[in-house]
Amino acid sequence: MIFTLGKVAGHISAELHGDPECEVSDISALQSARSGQISFLSNRKYYRYLRHTKASAVIIKRDDLEACPVSALLVDDPYLSFAGVVKLFHPDPEIVPGIHPSANISSSAKVDSSVTIGPNVVIEDNSVIGSGTFIESGCVIQSDVSIASNTRLYPNVVLCHAVVIGSRVILHPGVVIGADGFGIANNKGVWTKIPQIGTVIIEDDVEIGANTSIDRGALENTVIEQGVKIDNQVQIGHNVHIGAHTAIAGCVAIAGSVTIGKHCMIGGLSAINGHLEIVDNVVITGCSAVGNSIKSPGTYSSGIPVTEARLWRRIVARIKKLDDLAKKVAKLEEMIK
Amino acid sequence: MIFTLGKVAGHISAELHGDPECEVSDISALQSARSGQISFLSNRKYYRYLRHTKASAVIIKRDDLEACPVSALLVDDPYLSFAGVVKLFHPDPEIVPGIHPSANISSSAKVDSSVTIGPNVVIEDNSVIGSGTFIESGCVIQSDVSIASNTRLYPNVVLCHAVVIGSRVILHPGVVIGADGFGIANNKGVWTKIPQIGTVIIEDDVEIGANTSIDRGALENTVIEQGVKIDNQVQIGHNVHIGAHTAIAGCVAIAGSVTIGKHCMIGGLSAINGHLEIVDNVVITGCSAVGNSIKSPGTYSSGIPVTEARLWRRIVARIKKLDDLAKKVAKLEEMIK
Amino acid sequence: MIFTLGKVAGHISAELHGDPECEVSDISALQSARSGQISFLSNRKYYRYLRHTKASAVIIKRDDLEACPVSALLVDDPYLSFAGVVKLFHPDPEIVPGIHPSANISSSAKVDSSVTIGPNVVIEDNSVIGSGTFIESGCVIQSDVSIASNTRLYPNVVLCHAVVIGSRVILHPGVVIGADGFGIANNKGVWTKIPQIGTVIIEDDVEIGANTSIDRGALENTVIEQGVKIDNQVQIGHNVHIGAHTAIAGCVAIAGSVTIGKHCMIGGLSAINGHLEIVDNVVITGCSAVGNSIKSPGTYSSGIPVTEARLWRRIVARIKKLDDLAKKVAKLEEMIK
Repeated sequence: MIFTLGKVAGHISAELHGDPECEVSDISALQSARSGQISFLSNRKYYRYLRHTKASAVIIKRDDLEACPVSALLVDDPYLSFAGVVKLFHPDPEIVPGIHPSANISSSAKVDSSVTIGPNVVIEDNSVIGSGTFIESGCVIQSDVSIASNTRLYPNVVLCHAVVIGSRVILHPGVVIGADGFGIANNKGVWTKIPQIGTVIIEDDVEIGANTSIDRGALENTVIEQGVKIDNQVQIGHNVHIGAHTAIAGCVAIAGSVTIGKHCMIGGLSAINGHLEIVDNVVITGCSAVGNSIKSPGTYSSGIPVTEARLWRRIVARIKKLDDLAKKVAKLEEMIK
Repeated sequence: MIFTLGKVAGHISAELHGDPECEVSDISALQSARSGQISFLSNRKYYRYLRHTKASAVIIKRDDLEACPVSALLVDDPYLSFAGVVKLFHPDPEIVPGIHPSANISSSAKVDSSVTIGPNVVIEDNSVIGSGTFIESGCVIQSDVSIASNTRLYPNVVLCHAVVIGSRVILHPGVVIGADGFGIANNKGVWTKIPQIGTVIIEDDVEIGANTSIDRGALENTVIEQGVKIDNQVQIGHNVHIGAHTAIAGCVAIAGSVTIGKHCMIGGLSAINGHLEIVDNVVITGCSAVGNSIKSPGTYSSGIPVTEARLWRRIVARIKKLDDLAKKVAKLEEMIK
Repeated sequence: MIFTLGKVAGHISAELHGDPECEVSDISALQSARSGQISFLSNRKYYRYLRHTKASAVIIKRDDLEACPVSALLVDDPYLSFAGVVKLFHPDPEIVPGIHPSANISSSAKVDSSVTIGPNVVIEDNSVIGSGTFIESGCVIQSDVSIASNTRLYPNVVLCHAVVIGSRVILHPGVVIGADGFGIANNKGVWTKIPQIGTVIIEDDVEIGANTSIDRGALENTVIEQGVKIDNQVQIGHNVHIGAHTAIAGCVAIAGSVTIGKHCMIGGLSAINGHLEIVDNVVITGCSAVGNSIKSPGTYSSGIPVTEARLWRRIVARIKKLDDLAKKVAKLEEMIK
């Protein structure tokens, strides 16, 4: 597809510095763009590439106009505007509604006529699939599931019994929603399973990454509010409630009965202990362990970045004796006073 | 379903304080229960909800009788008794034996006539499926696998060649058992694959959470003893041996050739280094790293809970210089002596 | 299969100390080997088993010849040589080419006549599958994917649109390659999805463990160079580039736009923050968090091994006050000077 810079600028409401008739045919990263391509600068780590870019035009902030050697499209948020340009050049392919003959759909399921269902999909009794939803190969929708409209399930997603999915939800391959929570009670050394009779409610505009699993509630439901974005391989336990527009990076582990507020951001490989509450607008940086409820907005951390291993081994030995060290210092203070 | 409190009390051998003819029709959490529902109090965090509960009856310990404003069922372990009540109100749905016509079953496989097999299930050569087992849609059972009786495989589980599964085992969606272990040997900078010729043995009454993977042994077998409960997204390496009735929370990573005793509990997102031994009755709290064998029962930790990020950055800088700090303190001690 | 020790020694170019006509029929671990079996000693943790082994022969280094009570095959790298012996006794089963009738293959896909395709496999439009490749049950190959020759996909692998896979690649069950990266831009509190239009390139001789996910690039491609070995449940974000012959253990989380050099080793449950660069020949030990680029080869760590929990709680309290402690020490130094 080919667009003029004028057309692109109009599409993202940018102020164009350059020839509006100049044609661009694709998008690319600053360092690899060629003539005829459009790029963007958002992360300051890539600022060094701006001066030498071969792109025909770059989407930037006004502050970077001086440094831009080619045509510029000035916007407030280049990353966000860039998203709009990507969609312009790479529109979603049209999906033809229809049900693949190898799909197994219960006669009691209600599937809208505008739905697209791929090979080997299984839809069990009484499930309801809304308009424009696209369910790809190998997905399994168990009984009494409800999916609203324009939702997309990539291949091999599993939705367990009675799960409720909103509109415009995106579920990547291997996602499992509604498996039993880890509910066990100890009976003289032997674990008894606690039946998990709640379900999972995923609200509108949620996106969930590959191989992530979200457990059904024990009694109450597990709830993911609208606009939440979850990366790959995240584990969300039973009865968790995640507030709207919170973003959770890869490999995060959230134990059961945790409540997370709206507009939070949780960094990768962090963990949140069970039965805690986190208020709105909390940022947890990567590799952190949340061990108590967080009652004030702000940024919280406990990850330790790497050091050269020989030094780290000495540090670990010192950490293990930190209680002694503190006592020594207290004693010294006492002696000198 | 409707039961009288007398009937419920009898079912869990509870001492009833209240009207045995009072009818209850469902169960619910303390804070959301309505009249006609029964609830329970186990975790002390929810004690504050007891005084105001609208439940018709609550399963509690004798000590909480005074604080209970409604009918009470006194038991030793409310969480455990609650499990029995859940099963009373929510019995497992009956499963009709039979093989879905879309299943692909090798003519050399032996499938008991009481087995239930869902759509698109694949069972390869010489595998044996015992009575009452339920294999849901999209599961793949490779050759020479053996599954005993009354085991349940949720959708899209993969059992690799020659894996052995006991009775009453529950495998949640996306579980992979018996993939090759991570056996590689370095040959002048290039990795050579070590063939993995052991298998995996899962004993009776084991439950394994969604998207968990358990590797086959390199030479010996990987063994999960009876009654072990494993949460979602756990990774268990080759030749690991886990003792009976141990419980492992989500996202734990267990490296190869680890031996874990019986009745252990491993907290979420913990890691256990390769070739270690952990004795019976060990508790590892969440986000801990086990770097040496553990030879005594007890509780072990190395997770650090989060702090406000600005303070944490200063602490990390101090940790990185902890060896210097300790040396300074030693010097001060020397000077003052 | 039965071989003489002479034949085995020749196969791995070992110096045999013992009867070349002695017959062995299988391989086993040192501690469990019986007469007629061959074993090996590589990890020093198992040295104690050498003296008492019942194996007929052991593959060892020259230094261990004195301690070996049975026939010995002397080699430079017993673990590597052992791999060759395993293949001798356990050759890969022959795979018969052919396409299972339940597979759904687009008429525009190009599938070599020597390919083996299992039940319920889906291959979408324009994908190309090279000679000798084996695609097992339930795999989904989306449109425009390219797979070279002699590659193996275990069951339920998903390859998304336009992914490129090399030769002799091994993908274990549940692997997802090419799902959308976690690209979101915040628009007044609401997340906008950034379309992910790059793809994933997996070069020759790569092995990827069960339930691992590798995201497609946002603009550029995600690239895994030749000979890289990745364990189970690893998460690799968009635009990551991993150099040849690097090995990554289980549950590692690599955020977007990370570049890792050749011949690196990353320990289990480690995390690498986004947009970092790691040079060749770097070792990251398990449970470490990489927070800055690593510019020199070497070994790096930040994991802390467990301590008895009661002591650890005191240590954590001291860590939280480490900044104060350091200030106290500085003050003491000032006073004593």
